[in-house]
Amino acid sequence: MGRNVAQKLIATHLVSGEMTPGREVGIRIDQTLTQDATGTMVMLELEALGLDRARTEVSVQYVDHNLLQTDSKNAEDHAFLRSACQRFGLWYSKAGNGVSHPTHMQRFGIPGKTMVGSDSHTPAAGSLGMLAIGLGGIEVATAIAGEPVYLRMPQIWGVRLTGALPAWVSAKDVILEMLRRHGVKGGVNRIIEYHGPGLARLTAMDRHVIANMGAELGATTTVFPADDQVRTFLRAERREDDFVELVADDDATYDIAETIDLSTLEPLIALPSSPGNVHPVHEVAGRDVQQVVVGSSANPGLRDFAVVAAIVRGRQTHPGVSFDINPTSRQILQDLTKMGGTLDLIAAGARLHQSGCMGCIGMGQAPAVGGNSLRTFPRNFPGRSGTTDDSVYLCSPETAAAAALTGRITDPRDLPGLLGIDYPRIELPSRSSVNTAMLEPPLPAPRAGQIVLVKGPNISSLPDFGPLPSRIEAPVALKVGDDVSTDEILPAGARVLPYRSNIPRLAEFTFGQLDDSYSHRVLAGRDGSGHLVVAGANYGQGSSREHAVIAPRYLGLRAVLAVSFARIHWQNLANFGVLALEFTDPDDYRSIEQGDVLILEDLRTTLRRGSAVVQIHNATRGRDYITSHRLSGRQVGMVLAGGLLPAIRQRPEGSN
Amino acid sequence: MGRNVAQKLIATHLVSGEMTPGREVGIRIDQTLTQDATGTMVMLELEALGLDRARTEVSVQYVDHNLLQTDSKNAEDHAFLRSACQRFGLWYSKAGNGVSHPTHMQRFGIPGKTMVGSDSHTPAAGSLGMLAIGLGGIEVATAIAGEPVYLRMPQIWGVRLTGALPAWVSAKDVILEMLRRHGVKGGVNRIIEYHGPGLARLTAMDRHVIANMGAELGATTTVFPADDQVRTFLRAERREDDFVELVADDDATYDIAETIDLSTLEPLIALPSSPGNVHPVHEVAGRDVQQVVVGSSANPGLRDFAVVAAIVRGRQTHPGVSFDINPTSRQILQDLTKMGGTLDLIAAGARLHQSGCMGCIGMGQAPAVGGNSLRTFPRNFPGRSGTTDDSVYLCSPETAAAAALTGRITDPRDLPGLLGIDYPRIELPSRSSVNTAMLEPPLPAPRAGQIVLVKGPNISSLPDFGPLPSRIEAPVALKVGDDVSTDEILPAGARVLPYRSNIPRLAEFTFGQLDDSYSHRVLAGRDGSGHLVVAGANYGQGSSREHAVIAPRYLGLRAVLAVSFARIHWQNLANFGVLALEFTDPDDYRSIEQGDVLILEDLRTTLRRGSAVVQIHNATRGRDYITSHRLSGRQVGMVLAGGLLPAIRQRPEGSN
Repeated sequence: MGRNVAQKLIATHLVSGEMTPGREVGIRIDQTLTQDATGTMVMLELEALGLDRARTEVSVQYVDHNLLQTDSKNAEDHAFLRSACQRFGLWYSKAGNGVSHPTHMQRFGIPGKTMVGSDSHTPAAGSLGMLAIGLGGIEVATAIAGEPVYLRMPQIWGVRLTGALPAWVSAKDVILEMLRRHGVKGGVNRIIEYHGPGLARLTAMDRHVIANMGAELGATTTVFPADDQVRTFLRAERREDDFVELVADDDATYDIAETIDLSTLEPLIALPSSPGNVHPVHEVAGRDVQQVVVGSSANPGLRDFAVVAAIVRGRQTHPGVSFDINPTSRQILQDLTKMGGTLDLIAAGARLHQSGCMGCIGMGQAPAVGGNSLRTFPRNFPGRSGTTDDSVYLCSPETAAAAALTGRITDPRDLPGLLGIDYPRIELPSRSSVNTAMLEPPLPAPRAGQIVLVKGPNISSLPDFGPLPSRIEAPVALKVGDDVSTDEILPAGARVLPYRSNIPRLAEFTFGQLDDSYSHRVLAGRDGSGHLVVAGANYGQGSSREHAVIAPRYLGLRAVLAVSFARIHWQNLANFGVLALEFTDPDDYRSIEQGDVLILEDLRTTLRRGSAVVQIHNATRGRDYITSHRLSGRQVGMVLAGGLLPAIRQRPEGSN
Repeated sequence: MGRNVAQKLIATHLVSGEMTPGREVGIRIDQTLTQDATGTMVMLELEALGLDRARTEVSVQYVDHNLLQTDSKNAEDHAFLRSACQRFGLWYSKAGNGVSHPTHMQRFGIPGKTMVGSDSHTPAAGSLGMLAIGLGGIEVATAIAGEPVYLRMPQIWGVRLTGALPAWVSAKDVILEMLRRHGVKGGVNRIIEYHGPGLARLTAMDRHVIANMGAELGATTTVFPADDQVRTFLRAERREDDFVELVADDDATYDIAETIDLSTLEPLIALPSSPGNVHPVHEVAGRDVQQVVVGSSANPGLRDFAVVAAIVRGRQTHPGVSFDINPTSRQILQDLTKMGGTLDLIAAGARLHQSGCMGCIGMGQAPAVGGNSLRTFPRNFPGRSGTTDDSVYLCSPETAAAAALTGRITDPRDLPGLLGIDYPRIELPSRSSVNTAMLEPPLPAPRAGQIVLVKGPNISSLPDFGPLPSRIEAPVALKVGDDVSTDEILPAGARVLPYRSNIPRLAEFTFGQLDDSYSHRVLAGRDGSGHLVVAGANYGQGSSREHAVIAPRYLGLRAVLAVSFARIHWQNLANFGVLALEFTDPDDYRSIEQGDVLILEDLRTTLRRGSAVVQIHNATRGRDYITSHRLSGRQVGMVLAGGLLPAIRQRPEGSN
């Protein structure tokens, strides 16, 4: 039977398991990507593992998140990361070089390769026919050390694209249509594979937009074939030699099948405060807009900026709008400047910011409370902008440009009538301005071994966590609802991100957006019986940050009881020895209140004998619940040991 | 007898007093400038004054300091400032339009006019033949309301320039030479007036560099004649009609005379951590550099960026250096982009930031602890960069560019030999890209009256302060040394600046860099007898921020005893009813310790009867000191009333 692209990618990298949906498979990893916000922890984990040199084909550390440098911590993290790259044999992408995902695609992505990254938008590299998965940092660290990555074989969800996009509709509207149809949980335990004749006119960078935001559906990853569009892209990046064709067999099938006729799409917009809250732009047209931001890994391509520049060319943006432009990378800004687009944006009133993630990760650009902000970003979870009670919308560059000109939400298809603007057709240069001077290659081995890690005062070592106790009797310190994101568990933003390498200080911010007394309340029980958290469905969606586990674990979190978990967060819990338990009867969720004391008995015996079921007694209410854990045998060992690091350290010498 | 330029400017605006050095003169004010960090308070003061409409010819509110927007407060301040401009008849310069001083010079500066600004670098407008003085916000507020500004007539210090600058030496080196000769107190109670044949080849923007950093000498202001260079500048800005010639009479004299032969100057650099710590670059050449920042009001001109772009063109900056570019304004960035300079900078590895003050005011770009940072900024006071224990150097664009390429401090005159770079001669466009779309003009009066101020949750009203008590018996809560800057009294930076409109919260940061227990220690005595501060010479140098008085005044500060005061801070103390007393015998400073209790008796009677002398009894040590206050009769009334606002409010109806 023929194979689809996802199956081919897994089959060529399979080291253990069977490719049956739901079964654990082990996959060999060719490349890794880390960014600075999660990367400092990955480097500390490499140090804890005692690694001498990276065993991947390519591992790149990007600096794109912590760029504001409001005090010395950011600059010190950058120096630490640079020294760790030199020590462990990684590439180092300097602050200012650009956002990891598009930069990696331009400089390192190769069809047919696997990659893991400590960033939830890592799947963007699926645009080139790669299998690229976002994971917690500890699994990226072990992948750098040559370990396979384990996951439950996902279902492959084939999305057949037909037709062509109409004027004023672009790739962002395709992924917003997927979110409109399926919501933020629609892709859980699935790989989305796009195929069909509609692909012919979607450039590799258009596909990046779609693959990037597949993370918002909760998908394991997204893949595209490596076809002529990928060849054209690599040729423009002067890497045509890296092209390998990778397409589905003619008789390939998919576990789930769906079709989108691109010609029927219209401009879409995600309303506050979820990427899944998608509506046609015209339904909300007319609302006042105070800020428009263009950029981020969700609309990173030269085209995305050039189309905005062409729309505002010779015009002035609205006096009540802050029109913020975040270039993706210095390469793209260089090309945009050559094309004249940078000048058009400045003349029209843009605030041109440094290349990087910026407001997308809450590093600056926070809007006023309640002020509508339209962004080409991938996420608008509550407070992620840096503003409590924010009002952030997600849209295409075309919709963003329209609002910048009119000062209100505007269907871009109305621009010809309103302002006499024709839809610009963007001619991209056939060769990009390749400039690698801000990318430092790995140091050769003999010199690398002599490098000493540069640890500033804010870089503390990883705390040691003990093994899982046999009996837990602990209070439910917090009960939360559905779709709680890792932004709500542990925020990013300018106030918190600088402490990413300092767990005791970082932990003070845990759950601060939901309940700012949490960290104080649980601290007392930290070294005793600890505490529990109860959650609704899709707990831990969003960013891959493992800090959302490490920080509450540091505060004494022993188990989370939820209706369901988001994939990466679920893995992160296991990686740091926190039990993730799902209610067999989702109604049980309602019968537990914050403050209830729960008892879990004989945990070590139960887990060791292979039972998937864990019984819980609610001592406050005299009730019992049945939960299940979904851990593989390998993961059970890890959780019993207290996490992945202690499990690897306990492994007998020479075993792998 | 002939008059010099400074005397002509004062004489044509004199409303009271005599132009004898040391005597108080009242001056009519034509223009005002406020920036956002001090401007929110000015707008609250206009509200407290009950102003209906600005009575100046031109008043402009710039947004250039608080641009990072790490949470909602910045965006809300911007909205408040915009509404206040609409209400009171001011121009509003949006975030992204640019740094106040060069932007004001380009769009509003007129030879022969007077201006006050709530920013210590306001004297930059002296480059056009204006009398421009930096003041605390409250005096700018009263100037907007039509009140004269009072100051003691300064001495006029004529600096005759001869010769021409050699290659690799530029305007920044001229002002660094002044600082090398005279230090940070050399200009106190003086107006510096440049004249002589050396002016012929200094453009108006070169003069801006020199006038701007005259503030670092402690000068009241700096003036240049309005000559052909000024006419050329205004023609390029398409405002030739605003040109008025203003030159010294042939027989003009100066209170102090000095000469600089420009042809003898060499590249200079201010070492950490004072603008007065100036040495030739070659003396410190070879030190490692981690960061180079180009921009700020101290090197704002198109030339300053274009010369850097020309030096790095076709080369790569050093891998260990963060090369940060802060464009001055969108107009200058637009022109630089048209000239190709922006592309050269990006290609060479620049991090191109949004237009504004940025790192110059500690909003981002903080270096690592101890990492050498070379900046074209005006100030390097300890911690102003946002990093405690920073190591910041001040230099010309040429010296900055050299370090960016080599990764170490490098005399730019060595670049031809080291890298084969000839000194670039920059050809500036004869017409600038004038674009006023980010400058909103004042609303017409009838509509303005209907505007309601938009006050976000962080905008609180100005606290009311009571009159001066007759007797003070209070402890010396803090004793500090010489040259304490307003940055040390109340820092700027990303952590503190957002609270500029919220005095109770802001006050918690008072003196935090010198003694972080101060605000807690004094709070208890706030509503009782208050407390005192004892300081050495030049207390309160640097930024004009009146918050450095309002915040400690809010915490109960009643008097400061110092060896001497910096001018603006001295006025700010009076404006908010805090007694500023100078030791008659400077040795008395040494005999007071922190914690001593001092007693000041019969204060109101003593001040009212016109005595300049205030006796102080040290109850802890049984000693007596003689101090003097230097207040004019007008100022005595103000201090007795509790400050300028209560004094104006107490004035009988109809008086002026």
